[in-house]
Amino acid sequence: MKERTDYLRLARTEGVGPVTYRRLLAQFVTAEAALAALPEIARAGGRVNAPATPSRRDAEREFQKVEKLGGHIVFTGEPAYPPMLALLPDPPPVLSILGDMAALHGRAVGVVGARNASANGQHMAEMLGTDLAAQKLVVVSGLARGIDAAAHRGALHVGFTVAAIAGGLDQPYPPENADLQAQIAARGAVVTEAPWGTAPQSRHFPRRNRIIAGLSLGLVVVEAALRSGSLITARLAQDANREIFAVPGSPLDPRCRGSNDLIRQGAHLIESADDVLANLPDDPRRLGLSRAPLFARGVGQGASEEPANWEGAPDNDFDIARVQADILGLLNPSPTEMDALIRCSGHPAAAVAAALMNLELALRVEFLPGNRICRLAH
Amino acid sequence: MKERTDYLRLARTEGVGPVTYRRLLAQFVTAEAALAALPEIARAGGRVNAPATPSRRDAEREFQKVEKLGGHIVFTGEPAYPPMLALLPDPPPVLSILGDMAALHGRAVGVVGARNASANGQHMAEMLGTDLAAQKLVVVSGLARGIDAAAHRGALHVGFTVAAIAGGLDQPYPPENADLQAQIAARGAVVTEAPWGTAPQSRHFPRRNRIIAGLSLGLVVVEAALRSGSLITARLAQDANREIFAVPGSPLDPRCRGSNDLIRQGAHLIESADDVLANLPDDPRRLGLSRAPLFARGVGQGASEEPANWEGAPDNDFDIARVQADILGLLNPSPTEMDALIRCSGHPAAAVAAALMNLELALRVEFLPGNRICRLAH
Repeated sequence: MKERTDYLRLARTEGVGPVTYRRLLAQFVTAEAALAALPEIARAGGRVNAPATPSRRDAEREFQKVEKLGGHIVFTGEPAYPPMLALLPDPPPVLSILGDMAALHGRAVGVVGARNASANGQHMAEMLGTDLAAQKLVVVSGLARGIDAAAHRGALHVGFTVAAIAGGLDQPYPPENADLQAQIAARGAVVTEAPWGTAPQSRHFPRRNRIIAGLSLGLVVVEAALRSGSLITARLAQDANREIFAVPGSPLDPRCRGSNDLIRQGAHLIESADDVLANLPDDPRRLGLSRAPLFARGVGQGASEEPANWEGAPDNDFDIARVQADILGLLNPSPTEMDALIRCSGHPAAAVAAALMNLELALRVEFLPGNRICRLAH
Repeated sequence: MKERTDYLRLARTEGVGPVTYRRLLAQFVTAEAALAALPEIARAGGRVNAPATPSRRDAEREFQKVEKLGGHIVFTGEPAYPPMLALLPDPPPVLSILGDMAALHGRAVGVVGARNASANGQHMAEMLGTDLAAQKLVVVSGLARGIDAAAHRGALHVGFTVAAIAGGLDQPYPPENADLQAQIAARGAVVTEAPWGTAPQSRHFPRRNRIIAGLSLGLVVVEAALRSGSLITARLAQDANREIFAVPGSPLDPRCRGSNDLIRQGAHLIESADDVLANLPDDPRRLGLSRAPLFARGVGQGASEEPANWEGAPDNDFDIARVQADILGLLNPSPTEMDALIRCSGHPAAAVAAALMNLELALRVEFLPGNRICRLAH
């Protein structure tokens, strides 16, 4: 129990994202040892005060609140952790889950799309939700208005559905879907990476989207405008080697331009759940083996090309302060791909990784889903 | 003039289709010699009476009627013959044309689709017609209700359009498009393979469709149900190595299922005229070089694999009567691909070709667009 409390404290520490969490545990083995080392690491990154870590008592209180609601907190490496999420290079360290844990262990398909969806789009999403669930697939979505809610509703008629949300388990959002969220918790599962009490904000959506993509063997986009959040989810799914499906629509409707564009880039054009099933791998290990990458240059593709020493302890034959300074010089508030950063820095990948961990703990950079990094403004 | 009259008589002879016309001229050099040989050939095919050939006077009268209307009759091999159609392995022997001949010599794009098109579909077709014509492309279509008429109208706003029709030049069809046909004749061109006075019937549509496909560098399908005529036109365009484009639409609308299916099979998904232009070859000789065949097995693909002696006079080292009997045994009223027929017969391609010519003139078989043959019921 003490060990799980330390895991939660580490995961909830200011500046500790999935990548740094994984690196800290790889380096210090236990959460307790990592917590003890944090102040020194942050100082090396240029920060005077130790990063804010929740007290043992705060962490225990979060466990209690989730349990009181009937939920569970699950960490990477635990048997209850969703196996598809565990395939990600940087899985969410901790998940708060309300509902049936089995829903997170089944074969799943994500269905996402526009909030301001057309009546036809919502009808399509609901039909797909029902037909996929009838085929014993778990329908994963983001509980947003429009397509997401329609897909959840469709699945609830006949089977399992999972809602990934951006805020805490105690913060239903949007308000009009609070009832739907309760139904899903009762007959499926609601999952979030956010701590108890977190009010959902737009900056939390990428993490929510990564869970939708990560839980699913494939992702269906029903209606999506150009540059919409659904396309970001599709990109995250592509990064995770999941199949991408899109429902075609009239070019005269701007809500179809993004989904049509996905088809143009190689997503499967689908008209029914059968079309999805026909292109879903039986074995998750075969994901993405059958096709070319969808996007011209997949964000985070570099993850699979990481040098072998990425996971290991940093080689100390480099000047960490200089690497940190070089990296800060290269970064700006726009996301930069890890690959490009390593290449431009001229430093070994292990040195860049060590420097980034220090900088993240010093709140000077932030890891974004898809193995990208941005510099934080002070 | 006498020579052109004989060309017309040969082309209008009962049982003489594009393949047989080409073969007869290859073998007998002049139309006059071919006409003289016809009765003997038909007899060899098992027919007692000579095939019905129009008299010289009838043929001259057809020339006069077309000329009186201000039109032209053009044969394969003449400079006025549309160069894109001349690329077909079995081009229409004779075309009747009303309007500006230049329209048949420009870079063209076909736009076809459902007769019972949606308002959105017709809007899309008209927009594509206008935007393609504004880019100096000739918009080719079939003057049908719905998508065809909308594409023609759109093109007429700014540029050239060509209507391929199924009946004679004097037979506007459908009646409500008679005015549109007159406008196209005045500011573009109307073209048909059918003789003067022919009332359009559904069996004439494949030849009309082949002209649409054959005149065009690429074919755009706007709305098309499964198993609709527009898909046949797409297949003919594919057989002729033309680019295929389709406008996506909601799977909830049956009028979009065929066009969506084309995209699934490899057609370019397009949302605007720019998307068409981006995938149109500059040089017709480069047609079809950039992509895999669209249909699982392209009908008539065999045309390009024809043995070199296909064009030449048949080698007489075979028993023509036996080849004919074998072929009749293999054929039925459903279309059979030339390739398959040659393979199953076990006879050399030249022998099969010679036998088919005799059988066509004996009205026992019929050549269909796309290098397919069917047996005629007696």
